[in-house]
Amino acid sequence: MTPMVDLVADLGEGFGAYTMGDDESLLEMLTSANVACGFHAGDPRIMDTTVRTCVENRVAVGAHPSFPDLVGFGRRAMDLTPEEVRTDVLYQIGALQAFAVAHGTRVRHVAPHGRLGNLVAVRADYARAVVDAVAALDESLIILAQDGELADAARARGLRVGIVGIADRAYRDDGTLVPRSEPGAVIHDADEVARRTLRMVTEGVIRSVDGKDLPVACDTVLLHGDSPGAIALAGRIREELLAAGVEITSLDKVLSGTGA
Amino acid sequence: MTPMVDLVADLGEGFGAYTMGDDESLLEMLTSANVACGFHAGDPRIMDTTVRTCVENRVAVGAHPSFPDLVGFGRRAMDLTPEEVRTDVLYQIGALQAFAVAHGTRVRHVAPHGRLGNLVAVRADYARAVVDAVAALDESLIILAQDGELADAARARGLRVGIVGIADRAYRDDGTLVPRSEPGAVIHDADEVARRTLRMVTEGVIRSVDGKDLPVACDTVLLHGDSPGAIALAGRIREELLAAGVEITSLDKVLSGTGA
Amino acid sequence: MTPMVDLVADLGEGFGAYTMGDDESLLEMLTSANVACGFHAGDPRIMDTTVRTCVENRVAVGAHPSFPDLVGFGRRAMDLTPEEVRTDVLYQIGALQAFAVAHGTRVRHVAPHGRLGNLVAVRADYARAVVDAVAALDESLIILAQDGELADAARARGLRVGIVGIADRAYRDDGTLVPRSEPGAVIHDADEVARRTLRMVTEGVIRSVDGKDLPVACDTVLLHGDSPGAIALAGRIREELLAAGVEITSLDKVLSGTGA
Amino acid sequence: MTPMVDLVADLGEGFGAYTMGDDESLLEMLTSANVACGFHAGDPRIMDTTVRTCVENRVAVGAHPSFPDLVGFGRRAMDLTPEEVRTDVLYQIGALQAFAVAHGTRVRHVAPHGRLGNLVAVRADYARAVVDAVAALDESLIILAQDGELADAARARGLRVGIVGIADRAYRDDGTLVPRSEPGAVIHDADEVARRTLRMVTEGVIRSVDGKDLPVACDTVLLHGDSPGAIALAGRIREELLAAGVEITSLDKVLSGTGA
Repeated sequence: MTPMVDLVADLGEGFGAYTMGDDESLLEMLTSANVACGFHAGDPRIMDTTVRTCVENRVAVGAHPSFPDLVGFGRRAMDLTPEEVRTDVLYQIGALQAFAVAHGTRVRHVAPHGRLGNLVAVRADYARAVVDAVAALDESLIILAQDGELADAARARGLRVGIVGIADRAYRDDGTLVPRSEPGAVIHDADEVARRTLRMVTEGVIRSVDGKDLPVACDTVLLHGDSPGAIALAGRIREELLAAGVEITSLDKVLSGTGA
Repeated sequence: MTPMVDLVADLGEGFGAYTMGDDESLLEMLTSANVACGFHAGDPRIMDTTVRTCVENRVAVGAHPSFPDLVGFGRRAMDLTPEEVRTDVLYQIGALQAFAVAHGTRVRHVAPHGRLGNLVAVRADYARAVVDAVAALDESLIILAQDGELADAARARGLRVGIVGIADRAYRDDGTLVPRSEPGAVIHDADEVARRTLRMVTEGVIRSVDGKDLPVACDTVLLHGDSPGAIALAGRIREELLAAGVEITSLDKVLSGTGA
Repeated sequence: MTPMVDLVADLGEGFGAYTMGDDESLLEMLTSANVACGFHAGDPRIMDTTVRTCVENRVAVGAHPSFPDLVGFGRRAMDLTPEEVRTDVLYQIGALQAFAVAHGTRVRHVAPHGRLGNLVAVRADYARAVVDAVAALDESLIILAQDGELADAARARGLRVGIVGIADRAYRDDGTLVPRSEPGAVIHDADEVARRTLRMVTEGVIRSVDGKDLPVACDTVLLHGDSPGAIALAGRIREELLAAGVEITSLDKVLSGTGA
Repeated sequence: MTPMVDLVADLGEGFGAYTMGDDESLLEMLTSANVACGFHAGDPRIMDTTVRTCVENRVAVGAHPSFPDLVGFGRRAMDLTPEEVRTDVLYQIGALQAFAVAHGTRVRHVAPHGRLGNLVAVRADYARAVVDAVAALDESLIILAQDGELADAARARGLRVGIVGIADRAYRDDGTLVPRSEPGAVIHDADEVARRTLRMVTEGVIRSVDGKDLPVACDTVLLHGDSPGAIALAGRIREELLAAGVEITSLDKVLSGTGA
C-alpha cells in the first residue's frame, strides 16, 4: 500500500497589526492547518482570511485552541480547572467554525496549542476536558496529538486521532520528547530533519537520542514557517516525501486508509 | 387571531468573578434570551451556564454580539470598518453556537448589543455587515432589531426579522426613540410601562411624546433584570399580557403566525 | 506602650460596569487600602475614584498587583518567569502611582494579590522579583505580606515589611495557613474572628487548629467587604480594637512605633 | 544661532511574541522616543527593554498613550468621554514612569498615539483631558503635538510644547495635513522628504501642496523605522541635518534654546 501522510502547520498566528510566520508560502505545501482562534494569537480578520485562503488552497481547517494568554502566546502554563479548559476550548472551536461555515467548509480537526498542547499529553483531566468539548460539538472532529493522555482519551471516546510526527525534535527511548530546556532537544540540521521525517512516514520508526529505533505513528507531519530556512525545509520535506512515493493527502484519507 | 409575542432579555452579562443582573429570576419569564458572547460581557463559563439554563427553561438562545470593548460594556462607539464588524459578529455568533450545540440546541437569533445595536439601526454599512455575517452562517437565524437599517437590510436579504418593542422608552412622532441624553427618554413609571407594553402588543400602537398614537410592530418585548424593580416589572408585564389573552411563545412561532 | 495596628482591605476591585464589594462602607474603617491595578480588577476610572476617596478619607493607598488574568480575577496560578513577574508588578505599581500623584499622595505599600500573593510567600524567585520591582521604584515602599519568602526577601533588601494578620483563617502549628481546600480553613463565626483579631493585636498570639498558642506578628489586619456580614464584622473588629485601647493608625506609624 | 532639533520615533510597539519596526537601528539616531504603554502596543517586558536601551543610548523617554485598542493598534476612533481619556492617559504615563524610574530616568514628554493623536489636535475636550492628566502628574512634562487644540491647551496651562515636524506628509495652505485618504497625502520620495525636513528645520518653512511656502515650527522631527527604506531615510535625514550645521539635541535643550 502506498504510504500516506498529511502535512500540517500552525497558521493565522498574527494579531491585529502584527504578523507571524509566512502563511502564504506554507499554504501551498499543506493539506491541513492549525488555525489560531484568538486566545494566543489570531483575530476575527486574520481568522477570516486564513480560512478563506485554506479553502482556496484545499487545505483542511483545524482549530488551534490555547490558554487565554495573548501576551504569552499561549506558552505559559495556567492553572485552569478542567471546566475552564473545556469551556475555553468550546468557545474557540465555535468561533473558528463560524468562519469555516461562512467559507463553505467546516472545522475538521482540533490541535491544542503551545503549553495547553503539552499539558493535555500528560494531564488526564485536561485531556478529558478537551475530549468533552470536542465530542459535545462534533464527533466527526479529529484530535491531533502526540501519543499521550489526549490521544488515549480521544480514542476511548470513539473520536478519531491523528498522531503528529515531529521530526525536528529529539525523542527519548520511551517515546517522549526531550524537553526544549535540554541540549539537543531541537534538531536544526535540515538534512537530518528531512531524513527523520522520511523514516517516520515510510518506515514508522524514529531514531532516539540514544541511537535506538523506536516505532512511531505519523499521520501528519508538523511543518514550520517562522523563518526563511523553515519554509525551505518544509518544501524539501514535501519534495522528498513525494520522491519516495508517499501520497500527501488529507488527514481524513490518511486515517481511513483511502488515499488515491 | 390570538395576539402572540415573545419575551426577551439580555442574559449572561457577567464576566469572570463579576455578576450583572438577576438571570435566574428573569429566565422563568422569558421565551428568548440575548446571550453575551465575550466582547462586552460574558466568558466561556458564563456562556455555558447561560445556554444550559436557557435549554432547561425552554428559552431560545440568541447571540448578543458587541463592539470589542469589555471595559466600556460595549456602550462606546468604535469606528470599525464594516469588514471589522462583519468578522467580529461572525466570531461571536460562532463562539455562542458551540455552547448551543453542546447543550443540544442552536442559536436562533442575533441581536446586536449596546452601541453597535444603536448604530446598525442607522448605518447601512454596519447593517449590511451584520446581515452578511448572519446570512453566511445560517439563513434560518432571526435578526432582532428595531425598525431601521438592520431590519431593512435583513428583509432585503430574505432573513426573518423580529421587531423589538421597547415599552420603557419614549418615541418621537417619526417612530424613532428619544435619545437617552434627553429628558423623558426613559419611562420609569411601572404602570405606564405595563400599559404601553399591552397596547403595543394587542393594538400595535404606542403613544409618542407628543401624544400621537403611532403604529408599531412588536414581535418581542425587551425585559430588564438589572434591579429588583425591573424584575418585578418584568413579571407584571408578563402577567398582564397573559391576562389580556396574549399568547407568550417563541419568536419562531410569532413570526410564522403559528402559535398554539 | 499602646498597641497599634493598621486596618487594610482590598478596594477598587470592580471593572468597567461591574462592581465588587462595598468600598464606601469599608473606607470609613480603614487606614490603608490595597487598590487593584487593572490586571485582575480595576480600570483607570475605578483607580482614579478609589484613590480620590482614599485621600478624602485619609486612607493610605497601596498597590495590589496581580497576575494578568482578568477573567480569573488573579486567582489562577500562571507559570510566569521571575522577569515577567518583576515587569508586571512594576507596570501596575507605576499605573497606580500616577493616580496617587494626581490626587496629591503617593503609593505607600505593595501587597501582591490572590494567587501571586500566595506564591510569593513560598517561591523565593517570585519574592525576589517583587522586591526587585519595588526597590528599583521606591525604597520607601512597604511590603505587605504574611511571614514567608516575600517578607524575608524584602527585609534582606532593607525594605520595610508590614505583616498581615488574617484572623478569619485557621493556622497550623508551624504558623502557615490551613489551605482553603481543607475543611475549617476559613473561620465564619464572627465572635471568634473578633476574638482572634484582638488576641493577635494585643497579645501577639493566635490559637492554631490544634489548640496551640502561636506567636504572630500583626502590623495590619485584613478586613473584607464582600458581603453585608463582612462589613458588619469589619465594623465590630474596629470597635473592639478601639475598646481594648488599641490605636488604629497608619502602617507607617505602626512600623516606626510612633503612634499618637 | 545654531539651529537645533530633536529626532523622535515611535519605539517599543511590539507585543508579546510580536515585533514591530527596527528599534535597534532607530535608537542610534534618536534623541527622543515615544514609547508604547500597553494600550495599542507594548507590554511590560518590551517597555522595560525599550526604556533600558533608551537610557543606554541617551535617548529621552516619552509616553505614547493610546485608545485602549490592541487589536486595532490604536488607529480606530473610540467615542470615549474626556474623563475616560484623562484616566486612560494617566494610567499609561504612570506605567511607563515606573520603568523610567527603575532605569534611573524619568518620562520627559507625552505624545498621544494614532487616532487619539489625531483627535486631540481637533477636539478641545480631548486636548484638555490630556493636559489635565499631564499637569496633574508632572508639570515639567513636555507635550509633543502638531499645531492644534492639544498644543493650544498645553500652552494655556503653562506646559511646554514641542511641535512635531512631519516631513513626509503633504500640507495644505492652512497648515493642516492632507488626510491619508487623499492622493498625495504621503510623500514617498526620499530626496524630497530629506529636502523638506531640512527646510523645516533650518528655514522654518514647508512647501504646501499648492506650492506655497508656509511658516512651520519644528522642534522635533518624526522618523520612522517600519521598513528598511525608512531606516535608511532616517539615517540620511540625520546626516543631512548634521551636514547643514543643525545641532541634534534633546527636546529639553531645543525648547530652552540652550544647545551646546
